[in-house]
Amino acid sequence: MTTTTSQSADIARLLSPRRIAVVGASDDIVRIRGRVLHLLLKRGYTGEVFPVTPSRAEVQGLKAYPRVGDVPGGVDLALVAVPANLVLGVLEDCAAAKVGAAVIFSSGFAEEGGEMAEVQAQMVALSRRTGLRIIGPNAMGFYNILDRTAATFSPAAEIAPVDAPVPAQGVAVVAQSGGLGFALYNRGVRRSLPFTHVVATGNEADLEALDFADALLDDPRVAQLMMFIEGVKNGDKLIPVARKAARLGKPVIMAKVGRSPAAQRAAASHTASLTGSDAAYDAIFDRYGVIRADDQDEMIDIAAAFSVGSLPRGRRVAIVTSSGGSGSWMADAIEQAGLTVPLLSEDLQARIRPLIPSYGATQNPVDITAQGLSAFDTVIEALADSTEADAVVIVAPLGSVGAVEAFSPEALKAAIARAGKPVVFYSYTPPAPEVAALMAGLGTTIFTTLTGCAAALAHLVRYREAVERLGRAGPETAAAPDARAALAGLPADACLLTEVQAKRLLATAGIPVTEEELVTGADAAVAAAARLGGRVALKLMSPQLPHKTDAGAVLLNIEGEAAIRDGYARLTGPVAAALPGIDIHGVLVQRMAAPGVEMIAGVTVDPDFGPLVMVGAGGIFVEILKDVAVSPAPVDRAEALRMIGRLKSVALLEGARGRPRADIEALADLVVRLSDLALATADRVQEIDVNPIFVRPDGVVAVDALARLAPAAAETPRPLAAAGE
Amino acid sequence: MTTTTSQSADIARLLSPRRIAVVGASDDIVRIRGRVLHLLLKRGYTGEVFPVTPSRAEVQGLKAYPRVGDVPGGVDLALVAVPANLVLGVLEDCAAAKVGAAVIFSSGFAEEGGEMAEVQAQMVALSRRTGLRIIGPNAMGFYNILDRTAATFSPAAEIAPVDAPVPAQGVAVVAQSGGLGFALYNRGVRRSLPFTHVVATGNEADLEALDFADALLDDPRVAQLMMFIEGVKNGDKLIPVARKAARLGKPVIMAKVGRSPAAQRAAASHTASLTGSDAAYDAIFDRYGVIRADDQDEMIDIAAAFSVGSLPRGRRVAIVTSSGGSGSWMADAIEQAGLTVPLLSEDLQARIRPLIPSYGATQNPVDITAQGLSAFDTVIEALADSTEADAVVIVAPLGSVGAVEAFSPEALKAAIARAGKPVVFYSYTPPAPEVAALMAGLGTTIFTTLTGCAAALAHLVRYREAVERLGRAGPETAAAPDARAALAGLPADACLLTEVQAKRLLATAGIPVTEEELVTGADAAVAAAARLGGRVALKLMSPQLPHKTDAGAVLLNIEGEAAIRDGYARLTGPVAAALPGIDIHGVLVQRMAAPGVEMIAGVTVDPDFGPLVMVGAGGIFVEILKDVAVSPAPVDRAEALRMIGRLKSVALLEGARGRPRADIEALADLVVRLSDLALATADRVQEIDVNPIFVRPDGVVAVDALARLAPAAAETPRPLAAAGE
Repeated sequence: MTTTTSQSADIARLLSPRRIAVVGASDDIVRIRGRVLHLLLKRGYTGEVFPVTPSRAEVQGLKAYPRVGDVPGGVDLALVAVPANLVLGVLEDCAAAKVGAAVIFSSGFAEEGGEMAEVQAQMVALSRRTGLRIIGPNAMGFYNILDRTAATFSPAAEIAPVDAPVPAQGVAVVAQSGGLGFALYNRGVRRSLPFTHVVATGNEADLEALDFADALLDDPRVAQLMMFIEGVKNGDKLIPVARKAARLGKPVIMAKVGRSPAAQRAAASHTASLTGSDAAYDAIFDRYGVIRADDQDEMIDIAAAFSVGSLPRGRRVAIVTSSGGSGSWMADAIEQAGLTVPLLSEDLQARIRPLIPSYGATQNPVDITAQGLSAFDTVIEALADSTEADAVVIVAPLGSVGAVEAFSPEALKAAIARAGKPVVFYSYTPPAPEVAALMAGLGTTIFTTLTGCAAALAHLVRYREAVERLGRAGPETAAAPDARAALAGLPADACLLTEVQAKRLLATAGIPVTEEELVTGADAAVAAAARLGGRVALKLMSPQLPHKTDAGAVLLNIEGEAAIRDGYARLTGPVAAALPGIDIHGVLVQRMAAPGVEMIAGVTVDPDFGPLVMVGAGGIFVEILKDVAVSPAPVDRAEALRMIGRLKSVALLEGARGRPRADIEALADLVVRLSDLALATADRVQEIDVNPIFVRPDGVVAVDALARLAPAAAETPRPLAAAGE
Repeated sequence: MTTTTSQSADIARLLSPRRIAVVGASDDIVRIRGRVLHLLLKRGYTGEVFPVTPSRAEVQGLKAYPRVGDVPGGVDLALVAVPANLVLGVLEDCAAAKVGAAVIFSSGFAEEGGEMAEVQAQMVALSRRTGLRIIGPNAMGFYNILDRTAATFSPAAEIAPVDAPVPAQGVAVVAQSGGLGFALYNRGVRRSLPFTHVVATGNEADLEALDFADALLDDPRVAQLMMFIEGVKNGDKLIPVARKAARLGKPVIMAKVGRSPAAQRAAASHTASLTGSDAAYDAIFDRYGVIRADDQDEMIDIAAAFSVGSLPRGRRVAIVTSSGGSGSWMADAIEQAGLTVPLLSEDLQARIRPLIPSYGATQNPVDITAQGLSAFDTVIEALADSTEADAVVIVAPLGSVGAVEAFSPEALKAAIARAGKPVVFYSYTPPAPEVAALMAGLGTTIFTTLTGCAAALAHLVRYREAVERLGRAGPETAAAPDARAALAGLPADACLLTEVQAKRLLATAGIPVTEEELVTGADAAVAAAARLGGRVALKLMSPQLPHKTDAGAVLLNIEGEAAIRDGYARLTGPVAAALPGIDIHGVLVQRMAAPGVEMIAGVTVDPDFGPLVMVGAGGIFVEILKDVAVSPAPVDRAEALRMIGRLKSVALLEGARGRPRADIEALADLVVRLSDLALATADRVQEIDVNPIFVRPDGVVAVDALARLAPAAAETPRPLAAAGE
């Protein structure tokens, strides 16, 4: 924790330097070397700036110094824009001069490969050795808008007027791609979104996107984070940052590239440093309320909705429109996003009716008609005062500032302020940029697409739900089963466990499994079947036979001594003979389980994110629905129930078509125990699949299971080494 | 057909008038009365304009006439902007003066209700009596951009420069909401989309949106239609227009409001004139390649993609990017839209490699890097020449015209022209409006969102597939079964048919049904069971008992005389006694069908659109998947197979988890026969539900069925009368 806090402080200092050296500064403001200095000076930086260049006495009107160490009084931050082969020497100078941090704009390191990748590794070593923190190389730098510090060459730093007021709170952008990070800023400024910082992390030799995210969350002026990542270098940083953001109530709007095979291929080809499957990211984002977005404008829309400052208490949206058709179209979008547009009560309709023309509508959408535009504020007030809507959307043609001014902005502003719930606008005529600024001033925002507006409101609702849920959750430590008990008797080498071994492991965690005995003779099989009672299944057990059914190694519904002897002979005779070289542990005699709803559950230990717990539909639903929910361990009962509740097949468990309700709570308990087991054994157990689980009205039973172990001595392998380590 | 052709010609004349009277014209160009004349004059109309007003000798510098009849030489079109109570008199004048058509801007008719709705009805009567065609009332009018005729008061008519060149071909907008219609135009112009017409139809007393759509499709200069509708007044016009558009290869991009209960409630409250369920619209749109969109910008994106002029031959997209992260994000969007980003062949990669910097990527996305911008045209050329991509997307920062010009636009234009496949752009920095114009000039378009770009390309692919499919389909006449045979023996009154009646109806169409006999005594039941053989089901038959199972009126797997007598006694005794007042036809003795994959099929006769045929998953899938496909009759075999192929549960039919493949062709045949039956009996049969159907490897059987009849004499009811009729 001390490390994190100290790193957060390092980064805070780095982002708010008082004395900056620009190494390689030149007078040519078209080239990066001159442009960085130019932007720093031009964008209102109030600290001291020192050009560093061996060849000139003065650059852009400032006295220049040959080396960083020559700058009198020390330097907080060095901005480095020199050819790649000179960078290491500059960093040595910086370290010697006790410079706190360096931004390296220069490119041609790890991305170039070969010996330049080695130079980047040396940079990392230098940073570790000397404590010099590094952004980049190949970075576009950062723009601290709050402190007017443009440590970047991005043209986007010039989008807003130099004297634009600094917001009290706003959005910080952290991006692994500088182009996209600054493009988000560029687009957001046009929507009058308040920004605090833009940070582009480049090759992340030292500081990573999540390091900046962590530090920026500590800044009270940062109300939201926008992130663009292709992946994180150190998976173990992700969950802590996501949890911290949720705890602070600061939304993280995340663009995570890599859903598609093509994007994964690209990431694999241009960097070896990124970790984690896309499904793991999704599970973590979902669990901790991180909002994943698929497009820049979607990110801007979501941030704009959050910037309004209040969250809906529920899913009910009231629509106020000056055009029937547009209001209805918005209703379609709102309901498609998973929110509702409820019929207003007769009382509320009666309050609204006198405010609008006779041919308007009061049901919701409230159609004030084109002739009733002046009624917007009074109608909003009526809706804001009521308990019948959790958010209000106003649909009108607001292409120009004049159009908004026709609605008496002061009255609107007052109504919005009193509302205590989000009141947002959508204009079907394309709004001019000044309209966005005007709306921001009124304490609201204006959307230009129906779908963007509706989706953003839905994110507000889901975010509130996630934060409340996480607030209710207990401490993130699991009441793990005795790990020694769980691991006792497991083979020491990396291997697949047999069904019976896997189920004994499950049983140590308190998971109900089928009644069964492993036998090694026909007589023993008969005796076991007699003890178990009823019909049995016979299964050939071998750690080299994970797919028993495909090999004909499972016989079901066997009854009577003769059939048991026959079955035993068949499994150990012709079936085994057809599987040469496998190590046979015996035959499992298993009491046939009473059927129930078929479900599956499992654990995969992600090398970076740790155990991910899965529950899903079994049987034919597996192929057709791909109906699974995944969440990082530890999963408590509430989380397990939420996972099950998100399955489409929950309808089966709830008793579709007049069948009895299955014991969903018992299934949730199984998932929790699986999560606890995974945490207790994460150094050994790499994967557990419980398939099928029968969920009956009176409980659950694990009918079959598989588990895969890592070798006892080795640590969890990290298949992809972080670059530069 | 003569009527349609003549109406299309009427509308073509109406939209290209040579002599226009503006009735109610004034000098006050802020008010509608003056504004209409002002826009007409200002926007370059080249025909003759005659202000008509009793109070003035001259308006806006033109000689004014007291009445329409006073205009020398006649009038093609009257634009009417007088108070509502004077409109009918003006229309009488117009009719007397043989004016061809009138646009009525005045509002306060059907939308006002009461006696003004009656005035609108009189307008309709006048139109029918005199042949005067009417747009409106309460219409925003139209803007014929090709002929520079702004017959509207919409401020959007002034968006483009007056001297903007007229496109050779473009997009026509037809909207029931003038605000949205002109907003689409407004947004599209900013994207440099070429427009031909905007028509806002208002209350549709006479001419409806689909009438304009039909006429505009006849205009060779109209390449695409955009429509905004809340619903159509006459459902029987929809399918012909959709088919015509597909036949002509002119995409129809459709905003149809009313997916949500709230929008349906709004439509019901503000008009009684719109017809058809939203699901029926979806089925028709899907069948005939009409592209449904959920947002204005989505419509613009789709139209922009079509405006490029070529359709992809398949789903493979090559991405060329100057930024790795953005290229990957685009790949995610493309694959999420249902297209693919395939790995390029080694040969093609070898051709591309020398064109780009060494640290670029060639797999696809092709990353030419920020340093390789000048290679865009040569890389595009390499991809265009290859057979490995059906479309090319270029991802780059193209915020300014300068940024595009850095890529040598002439070389790009040539490469795009040679490509023979869509080559489109996405800029992650927000593109300035002039960039859109520049791109249009290069024969391409630029998208501002990843998701919009990907979705639009996917629409191009699906549209091509739909048009090709419709081109392959036979004539739209069904080989209907003998309707008399089908209807023979059906009750004359409106009623529900029993299972046995419904299945006899199915059998007349050649649909395989279970073997069964209706009996009225225990002895007969025993005898029937003996003839059928094996185990049987016993079902109490009554037309008042559609949900037999819920009433305990179905006994399954009955075997042996005693059990049959018991069952018969139970159904006709206690079960029947618990259902007082129902009319019992007897007990159905049914041979138990061998199980198969449970599916359902059915027909609903939409009062406006005719029979809609449905096929879907049965059993538990009904609740969980809501997995159904709907298509308007007639459904031929190819269409039935397409419907089945779109079901998620097609995996069950195809033999998931090692089960045998079910007879999908036999299920398709059943669907075709159901469609034929529905067409042959559409005057009587309102609804058929076949549930379940067992689909086995060797055929299908309808196991249970329900049907609902309209009374024999009455015509199909039209529950909602079209307003003004």
